[in-house]
Amino acid sequence: MVDAQQQSQFMQAAIDEARLGLEEGGIPIGSVIVHAGRIIGRGHNRRVQQGSVVLHGEMDAFENAGRQDARVYAQATLYTTLSPCAMCSGAILLYGIREVVVGENRTFMGEEALLRERGVQVTVLQDAQCIDLMTRFIRERPALWNEDIGQESDR
Amino acid sequence: MVDAQQQSQFMQAAIDEARLGLEEGGIPIGSVIVHAGRIIGRGHNRRVQQGSVVLHGEMDAFENAGRQDARVYAQATLYTTLSPCAMCSGAILLYGIREVVVGENRTFMGEEALLRERGVQVTVLQDAQCIDLMTRFIRERPALWNEDIGQESDR
Repeated sequence: MVDAQQQSQFMQAAIDEARLGLEEGGIPIGSVIVHAGRIIGRGHNRRVQQGSVVLHGEMDAFENAGRQDARVYAQATLYTTLSPCAMCSGAILLYGIREVVVGENRTFMGEEALLRERGVQVTVLQDAQCIDLMTRFIRERPALWNEDIGQESDR
Repeated sequence: MVDAQQQSQFMQAAIDEARLGLEEGGIPIGSVIVHAGRIIGRGHNRRVQQGSVVLHGEMDAFENAGRQDARVYAQATLYTTLSPCAMCSGAILLYGIREVVVGENRTFMGEEALLRERGVQVTVLQDAQCIDLMTRFIRERPALWNEDIGQESDR
C-alpha cells in the first residue's frame, strides 16, 4: 500500500496521460504502472491516434512498461483514470497485478467485481477531474465512446 | 455456426499464423477473426518480434481487424490455436464475440469457463498440430513461455 500523497501523485500522472490523449483528439483515459515507488509504464487510449482497438489506456501502459519479470508485475500497482474494461482487467489478471487504483467508475463500470473475486485490491477514488473528463467526452463523442467499449450506437 | 469443413479451414489459417510466428523466432500461437465467412483479421503472438506484452495472437488479430462496427464483432467468430488467456478472453468479452473455436487446451487452460459463463460458445478441437506446436515450444523455451503467461520461472 502506498500513502495517500503518493496515490494522489500517481493518479495525477494517469490524469496527465488522459489529458494528453484528449489534446491529441483521442479518448481521455490514462494509466500508469508503478513498481517500487517508480512509474515503469505510462499510457493513454490510442484508438483515434493509432486506429488501435487493443491500446486502451491500461494496455498502452503495459505495452510501454514492456517485458518485465513476472515478479515486477506481481508487485506493481496499476493506476487508471477509469474503471478497467474486460480486456484491461484481463491483462491485469494475466500479469498478476495485485493492486489497482481507479479514478472513477461513475461514467463506466468495468470488471471490478471480477478483479476483486480474483484477489485484486481495487480502490476507487471517484476523482472529480476523472469524472469531468469522461462526462464531457461521452456527451461530445458518444459514438466514439460506444465503439471503444464494444457497444452499438443508435443510428 | 459454420460447418466442419469451414471450421477446419479457418483453424488452419490460425495454425499458419502460429507457424509464421515460430519461423520469426516467436511464440507459436495464431488467431483469425471471421465475419460472414471471410477472415477480417489475422495475427500471431508478437512478444519476441515486437517486444510486445499485449499482442498475443488473438490481440494481434483484433488489432489487424481494426475499428469494426460493434455489430461486426458481435457476429464474428474468433479462431485461436490455444485456449485464450485472461487478457484475450477479456478482449473477446469487450467486443462481444459470441463464438470462439480453440485449437487445444491441453498445454494451457485459459479462461474458457469465464467465457462460457458470459454466454460465449467455446468449441475446443484438441487439434494435433496445435498440441504439437505448443508442446515442443514449451519444452524448448520454458522461460519465454512463462513470461508470456505472467508466470515466474525457476532460476
